[in-house]
Amino acid sequence: MKKLEHIGIAVKNLEESNTLFSKLFGKLSYKTETVESEGVKTAFFKIGNNKIELLEATNDDSPIAKFINNKGEGIHHIAFEVENIEAEVKRLTNEGFIVLNEIPKKGADNKMVVFLHPKTTNGVLIELCQEIILKE
Amino acid sequence: MKKLEHIGIAVKNLEESNTLFSKLFGKLSYKTETVESEGVKTAFFKIGNNKIELLEATNDDSPIAKFINNKGEGIHHIAFEVENIEAEVKRLTNEGFIVLNEIPKKGADNKMVVFLHPKTTNGVLIELCQEIILKE
Repeated sequence: MKKLEHIGIAVKNLEESNTLFSKLFGKLSYKTETVESEGVKTAFFKIGNNKIELLEATNDDSPIAKFINNKGEGIHHIAFEVENIEAEVKRLTNEGFIVLNEIPKKGADNKMVVFLHPKTTNGVLIELCQEIILKE
Repeated sequence: MKKLEHIGIAVKNLEESNTLFSKLFGKLSYKTETVESEGVKTAFFKIGNNKIELLEATNDDSPIAKFINNKGEGIHHIAFEVENIEAEVKRLTNEGFIVLNEIPKKGADNKMVVFLHPKTTNGVLIELCQEIILKE
């Protein structure tokens, strides 16, 4: 894994939390994005070399809605940038980790993503991500 | 806030989790440390520019023991490096954030630390930290 790419925080109200975290970090979020396939609206902050991603559910079936119902607002996942997501999924499943989706899917922020099941990672939902670059 | 310094993960058994996260990251932790005043044993991994800190309680009154009893294993806190911890506490309390300790205290990894109450930060326990440098 190359680096910690971002931390995802589940919030009930993106607009209010965007204001709250702007005060916390002393700077504004630099973009917002909706990913309908994942049922989320997001806002991104840049802190040093990392990003903080706030996530609000867009519908009741969203993983974020379920997370907040079960555990309340808080840190939802941490994401690590990898060089080759398919090779990394292979390496990790060989090591005994369980992935939620073996085939990388399109996530926010122009990334292909795979999630590891928290039951094999001490309760931590871990995302692997790799930026999408289109061939010219 | 200058940068995300580390992510703290509460675990039941540091030795087992140290092995697990070594497999996950494909590298070994670079140090372990016990902070008796905080009731924790820790192991640190370096991923890119950030650290991942695993935390096991050393006694039943440890905040980590209480966290695991309430929520199970998982991400416990995220820590941001600040340039001037006292000025940052002042700025944040003026903004309406509540701190758990107004006076910075000695934490792991040679840092002075202040925690913000999760009730004012959407359920996220946030640590502010500043490295201790002794005058020669």
